[in-house]
Amino acid sequence: MTYCVGILVEEGLVMIADTRTNAGLDDISTYRKLHMFTTPGERVLALASAGNLSVTQSVLSLLTEGVEDPDTGKPETIYEAPTMFRAAQLIGRAIRKVRTIERAGFEAAQLRFEVSFLFGGQIGDGPMRLYMIYSAGNFIACSQDAPFLQIGEHKYGKPILDRAVTYRTDIYDALKVGLVSMDSTMRSNLGVGLPIDLTVIRRNTCDTEVLHRIEAGEPYFHDLRERWSAALRAAHRAIPRPPYGPGTK
Amino acid sequence: MTYCVGILVEEGLVMIADTRTNAGLDDISTYRKLHMFTTPGERVLALASAGNLSVTQSVLSLLTEGVEDPDTGKPETIYEAPTMFRAAQLIGRAIRKVRTIERAGFEAAQLRFEVSFLFGGQIGDGPMRLYMIYSAGNFIACSQDAPFLQIGEHKYGKPILDRAVTYRTDIYDALKVGLVSMDSTMRSNLGVGLPIDLTVIRRNTCDTEVLHRIEAGEPYFHDLRERWSAALRAAHRAIPRPPYGPGTK
Repeated sequence: MTYCVGILVEEGLVMIADTRTNAGLDDISTYRKLHMFTTPGERVLALASAGNLSVTQSVLSLLTEGVEDPDTGKPETIYEAPTMFRAAQLIGRAIRKVRTIERAGFEAAQLRFEVSFLFGGQIGDGPMRLYMIYSAGNFIACSQDAPFLQIGEHKYGKPILDRAVTYRTDIYDALKVGLVSMDSTMRSNLGVGLPIDLTVIRRNTCDTEVLHRIEAGEPYFHDLRERWSAALRAAHRAIPRPPYGPGTK
Repeated sequence: MTYCVGILVEEGLVMIADTRTNAGLDDISTYRKLHMFTTPGERVLALASAGNLSVTQSVLSLLTEGVEDPDTGKPETIYEAPTMFRAAQLIGRAIRKVRTIERAGFEAAQLRFEVSFLFGGQIGDGPMRLYMIYSAGNFIACSQDAPFLQIGEHKYGKPILDRAVTYRTDIYDALKVGLVSMDSTMRSNLGVGLPIDLTVIRRNTCDTEVLHRIEAGEPYFHDLRERWSAALRAAHRAIPRPPYGPGTK
């Protein structure tokens, strides 16, 4: 399984991804799922992937090798896309190209072509964007009303995001809530696991402010998990018991 | 959608179910999903249902009308089953009987035969049990290590159960945590909604201690939702911000 979350707040973008992959229940590995394409000062792009690893790796390769631009007929790489929208379209084309290549083999093996991506960042003076890109190559953009997107095993970690993140949230608070969301997911699904990759990209810098891997045993994340567990226990203890008792019928 | 949770602690059993059903996105109704079969002092059985409403209603009808006992050839009702295990088997047979009747029609309409049940309670001096019964009619029992079971839209509400419920939890605390779990689910999936039915069954009483419906606007549940939201916000605010800052790469 996979869990990736992107949060786009006023100050900038946070993206967090786990690294656990499984080919069957008994074949667990660690692969980076958060990929950066950065030309400092010019563009900073973060791409988090979920789904079939052979497909997501092929898409990543195409993004740097180039996919044909339907207007010019020439190959275009993710380092050349002039806007975030054009870059998201490029990723969509890369997904569709891999599908065309793999379709017959996947059908023969009865494999489902399932991938999804979170794609965020900024190019030049253009707007900062966060997109979710589906396996058909289409995509949606994150809005200020719901300033986060998730892929993979997203449900366990959604309640805290629903409650705690708004567009005005401080960017490092957004990172913190994102890590709590990741912790909730890891707690409830062992298929999502450490290490965790994260990046913080401040608006209008076109560079990564933080690019960090949380390994098992890192004191801050360990402390966050402990505090969050303790706080949840305290939170529900502080709620009065239900008034329903014997005879409430 | 549906969300039902059963919690089996040392003192007894809690079961909670929402009431929202939908036939398509634009056909939303309220149906009771928590059903009681009680002969006070002799048996108290709670059955919560998820999935296709026509199937779950037919299963419920069969349980009171009777399903053939394969050993005796005579119809057996849920009021006659001598043990919880036999009662769970009876529910499994009822599911399979409905499947036999509906199979051709469902296949013709390309409908999936999807139902699941939580079944808990106690019969006479026998053990209190909580089962999850699948659409194939097979079932599993809840254990002391993981003293809860869920059906329907279960992921949003699982993190708080994972953290806050053990076999030793006070039964009304278990009810409270179950309601928090329901609140988290309702917050993240509008397909799960009020009113909420709940029951508390104390061990070795063979009767309901509480059987209650929470309607919209009930002060206790409204207060629980507000307090939980406030506590979650306070909980993540109390966690220090991540130590990663500019230059953490």
